[in-house]
Amino acid sequence: MVSTLGLVAACLAASLSTVSGQTFQRLGTCPTLGCILPPDQQDFLPGQQFDIRFEVHAPKNGSEAFNNGVPDDKFTATIAKEGAQPKSLADFFKVSDPALEKWTFSWYEDLFAQDAKTPSIVNVASKIYRRVALYEPGTYTVTLNYYSGKTTTATWTVRPLATKKKAKNVIFFIGDGMTTNMITAARLLAHKMVNGRYQSLLQLDKFPVIGHQMSHSIDSFITDSANSASALYSGHKSTVNAMGVYADSSPDLYDDPKVETIVELLSRIWGSAWGAVSTAFIADATPIALTAHTRSRYQYGPLIDQALNGLTNYTWTQHGGPDVYFGGGAEQFLPGSGSYKGKDYFAEFAKKGYSVSLNKTALAAASNSERALGIFCKSNLPVWLDRNIFPENLAKLTNDPSGKNASAADLPGLKEMTLKAIDVLNTRGGKKGFFLMSEAASIDKQMHTLDYDRALGDLLELDDTVRATVEKLKSLGILDETLIVVSADHGHGFDVFGSADTKYMAAQEDDRKKRQAVGVYQMSGLSQYTVAQPGISYNTGPNFPLNWDPRYVLAGGMGANPDHREAYCVEKTGPRTPAATIAGRGSSDFYVNAKDKPKGFVVNGTLPVDEAQGVHSLTDVPVFAMGPCQEIFGGTYNNIDVFYKIATCLGLGHGTNKTDCGKGGW
Amino acid sequence: MVSTLGLVAACLAASLSTVSGQTFQRLGTCPTLGCILPPDQQDFLPGQQFDIRFEVHAPKNGSEAFNNGVPDDKFTATIAKEGAQPKSLADFFKVSDPALEKWTFSWYEDLFAQDAKTPSIVNVASKIYRRVALYEPGTYTVTLNYYSGKTTTATWTVRPLATKKKAKNVIFFIGDGMTTNMITAARLLAHKMVNGRYQSLLQLDKFPVIGHQMSHSIDSFITDSANSASALYSGHKSTVNAMGVYADSSPDLYDDPKVETIVELLSRIWGSAWGAVSTAFIADATPIALTAHTRSRYQYGPLIDQALNGLTNYTWTQHGGPDVYFGGGAEQFLPGSGSYKGKDYFAEFAKKGYSVSLNKTALAAASNSERALGIFCKSNLPVWLDRNIFPENLAKLTNDPSGKNASAADLPGLKEMTLKAIDVLNTRGGKKGFFLMSEAASIDKQMHTLDYDRALGDLLELDDTVRATVEKLKSLGILDETLIVVSADHGHGFDVFGSADTKYMAAQEDDRKKRQAVGVYQMSGLSQYTVAQPGISYNTGPNFPLNWDPRYVLAGGMGANPDHREAYCVEKTGPRTPAATIAGRGSSDFYVNAKDKPKGFVVNGTLPVDEAQGVHSLTDVPVFAMGPCQEIFGGTYNNIDVFYKIATCLGLGHGTNKTDCGKGGW
Repeated sequence: MVSTLGLVAACLAASLSTVSGQTFQRLGTCPTLGCILPPDQQDFLPGQQFDIRFEVHAPKNGSEAFNNGVPDDKFTATIAKEGAQPKSLADFFKVSDPALEKWTFSWYEDLFAQDAKTPSIVNVASKIYRRVALYEPGTYTVTLNYYSGKTTTATWTVRPLATKKKAKNVIFFIGDGMTTNMITAARLLAHKMVNGRYQSLLQLDKFPVIGHQMSHSIDSFITDSANSASALYSGHKSTVNAMGVYADSSPDLYDDPKVETIVELLSRIWGSAWGAVSTAFIADATPIALTAHTRSRYQYGPLIDQALNGLTNYTWTQHGGPDVYFGGGAEQFLPGSGSYKGKDYFAEFAKKGYSVSLNKTALAAASNSERALGIFCKSNLPVWLDRNIFPENLAKLTNDPSGKNASAADLPGLKEMTLKAIDVLNTRGGKKGFFLMSEAASIDKQMHTLDYDRALGDLLELDDTVRATVEKLKSLGILDETLIVVSADHGHGFDVFGSADTKYMAAQEDDRKKRQAVGVYQMSGLSQYTVAQPGISYNTGPNFPLNWDPRYVLAGGMGANPDHREAYCVEKTGPRTPAATIAGRGSSDFYVNAKDKPKGFVVNGTLPVDEAQGVHSLTDVPVFAMGPCQEIFGGTYNNIDVFYKIATCLGLGHGTNKTDCGKGGW
Repeated sequence: MVSTLGLVAACLAASLSTVSGQTFQRLGTCPTLGCILPPDQQDFLPGQQFDIRFEVHAPKNGSEAFNNGVPDDKFTATIAKEGAQPKSLADFFKVSDPALEKWTFSWYEDLFAQDAKTPSIVNVASKIYRRVALYEPGTYTVTLNYYSGKTTTATWTVRPLATKKKAKNVIFFIGDGMTTNMITAARLLAHKMVNGRYQSLLQLDKFPVIGHQMSHSIDSFITDSANSASALYSGHKSTVNAMGVYADSSPDLYDDPKVETIVELLSRIWGSAWGAVSTAFIADATPIALTAHTRSRYQYGPLIDQALNGLTNYTWTQHGGPDVYFGGGAEQFLPGSGSYKGKDYFAEFAKKGYSVSLNKTALAAASNSERALGIFCKSNLPVWLDRNIFPENLAKLTNDPSGKNASAADLPGLKEMTLKAIDVLNTRGGKKGFFLMSEAASIDKQMHTLDYDRALGDLLELDDTVRATVEKLKSLGILDETLIVVSADHGHGFDVFGSADTKYMAAQEDDRKKRQAVGVYQMSGLSQYTVAQPGISYNTGPNFPLNWDPRYVLAGGMGANPDHREAYCVEKTGPRTPAATIAGRGSSDFYVNAKDKPKGFVVNGTLPVDEAQGVHSLTDVPVFAMGPCQEIFGGTYNNIDVFYKIATCLGLGHGTNKTDCGKGGW
């Protein structure tokens, strides 16, 4: 049980562990040589199923080199509820001890080591206990004993029981990358102001409760959309690119310790209907994290199979497949290199009883009582601005979802997809209710490419969708029993700081003179986007700009950029590509894209030169809540708390293993 | 009453008015040639005193040239409550008609006109009705008739009566320029995280209610701190640089139509005590706007006189002078060029019964029952970071408040000033309660100079002050009867986007290679600011960083910048000056300051080259509320609504002219 290693070596490792890099990490969540996953300080919903992995690390070289790279494979572990005696995991969970696993991985200790190509090699011994759960609320301590008396402990908290359903339905809107700053800018674009008073408002402005949630990852303070979505859906933070698992150090992308997600819980406990809608390809992080269990979000094909069929490599709780699945990303459905095992996933879904829609007309006609798949294009859906203001840009694309060399025509937007999803889910969920996640994905995608107009256009589409959703729920008579939450998964450091006179900027030759076109403070003036112009009508309704291309445009920017050029005016020919490589200078060395914003001025970047786009930011993101349980969404909290709040409202915290009961009527 | 001008000219003006610039404006709030101030769409507290100005414009040249530049001086005006007959203003308010005024002003129609130095000249005829009030809640229409039947109308709303005091005291903290993004960054600096869970939190994180307020000006979407403070204190938006007035076009900086502020209302109606605390010079916009009525915030000397003696040029409601006035800015108190009429304002305050403190020791010893002035330095208070971490920087200053050529020693911080203010105000307010505004001014000032560490240090000082305030109120037994509101007046487009390896950056020669030191997403890693380092102890307590100068620093940035250099590490030698002029290139042409951040990389600016600093941004700013009435601060609203919420909670909306009643016990 205790290895015979000498104390000197053990102390050396202990002291080294405190100086290990904060940026480059051997394994996030594991600063010592003994790792418990889930690690210290994690929370659980009572009855939520999960896996537990232990790893013992033996670095072979580098600053932490230990025991000649031989990991202790006789480690032991215990678990104890507060006040009770520790038990072995096998005893506590009444499972048999798993087999020992071994592997090797490597990492760089800092940028100097990376430049010098001197990785540190780590040998690992590990065991994983699969599909366990903690049913009693309270505090638990897990202890890993290794290397002659070294210990790592993890304290876990099981949240209070919550067995009563307080909302029949939950609709969770995610504006990917959406911040309060962007909401403010979108309001200014679309809503007219007279003497400092808006004449109309965003739907978000009408939500009675606002909270702020912290979006950071478990092991880095800037998140990506995979692990933040996972935190929102499971109450467990993870590592960049991971979803539905705590990332371990093994090479297998699918063996990491899993946690049960909101739709798995909801299917198991209440048998409710559930669905996902996204303007991204549907295998993208935010929609796929509802069902995905992997440390790599990039396994698009396999993850679509997980969404339809659940996990097949391990015994695991079943979500039953979505009742609604609408978005882009035909690449993972058409038989070929993008799909799992080259199979035809349109056919796989159809075999399981799904209607399959490839355009807006088919979507509208699809049965509300059958499960519904709608895949409307390859890749992401074209953004609202191109679909509504510059439709000529759509014809340039070869994104037809049926695989034809043609552009996808007859595209639905977020609103059409969401309203149809509500019809199907309300019909199929019936008394058991439903959960819908609806994502405005290109707020994030277009902020990445500094295409502020396209990002804000999609934010306005989200707001318009939320507005239409409230009306729809009213007309179905289910508004009062439906919790609506609108939030984001992370931010981008965007803000508007003034206006720019496009006419003046275009007339200047010199970059410094062009900058004089920017007006700040009182010279920011008033928005011209809401001023009707003779001859311009987009027919996009009262909650969108009347003019996307005024002389005085909003001037906004990011806290960090690739090299690029700024002119602030709308890009009429399609989404921006701000930075590009230059022939002969390497494929990861990005400079100003010579073709982008030729009338603007050059801004050198502040990001690593291998970043072609803007990046995510730290800021807390807003949470807007309306409906049953709205009162628990005020104040400031962690992104995992969004899960616990929704799960509590849905009565998903049980002290017994409620499995496939499916009797959860309203 | 109706001029004899021909229809052709009238129509021309009507059509031109719709194409006038949105950025360059003849007069904000007045797109037509007839102006009503307060303009259309303004709100009033019942009984709130204000002035009404009418202006008729006759542009002599430019795109709006009209009537050979002769303004209609026979204009008339009426006011009508909804459903009632219009009356002349003299009849309605039972005042005599004021004298006609005339003046001329000029403006530029756009940047081309400014470059060409071709101003448009406007002749004006005007009248102003002073010190009126509307007592009945409801809608009022004011109509200005001019130029042969042309009309301008303004619809005003008088808010509901609110005569009951629900909070005895209100403490209103303003983090100048503070955004949710900055709060998130400050939390990461000072509070330790283990596996995605903070081990301690900001005091702001513990507030139960969050709202978002829109900060825009009345006539531009980016505000400055003068008119946003004015909106927060009076419920009336104004123009950049204006406070306590609607900006008119006259050359006189003190004749603009006024509105009554929160402290004027509170003094008049309840006779409560009031005070202001700021880390800025006390004549700066945010503290001075409590009492200032001017269209130019830069009249520092006269505004200190207004703060002590009230208005002397017009009959106006009296605030009685502050009970507490703590901050910097000895220039306006020492006799000389900075003070009003060269007088000694330390003596002027003392004459009126104020204790005068010039350092922290004197502040602590000052009587709690006397009115208290505390001016601790010239200019702004040195920031928290220099006072606590790099005190050697203080010795370089010649900011002694007594006028000696020495550095101010024994400086209080925001916390010491605020806690003392509470002692004095609670003693003096007694049963009548008190209102305190406490401002963390240098969040804004240091964000302007891109000195993120100093800005966030002052944000942490604000949070620490709020924490201490809650404890103080508890110990005084008045926590339950005190509303605490923490908000901001506007934002800066700041966000953190990753980390930077200072060691690696310093070791690189080339700017593009230096950028590789930035780590984004998973490479942002974990904060090192909360990791204790042997030999480093600042004694600043648990809610501040343990290390301000780690190897891996936070990397943050703004949406717009002057030319500057970035290295992201803390500046140890004092506040930053990111941009500077170059000999021979003019005093308003700013380039990278060669002395700033020499190990960093150059970032060319995105702002006009005459801006030496960053600028304010658009974003909605957060409102945190705790105490009586907290429930009305949720959701999204205009900055003026912060005033109406506080005024409602304090019972300041009366249907009669309550003057100096002073009987408002709790």
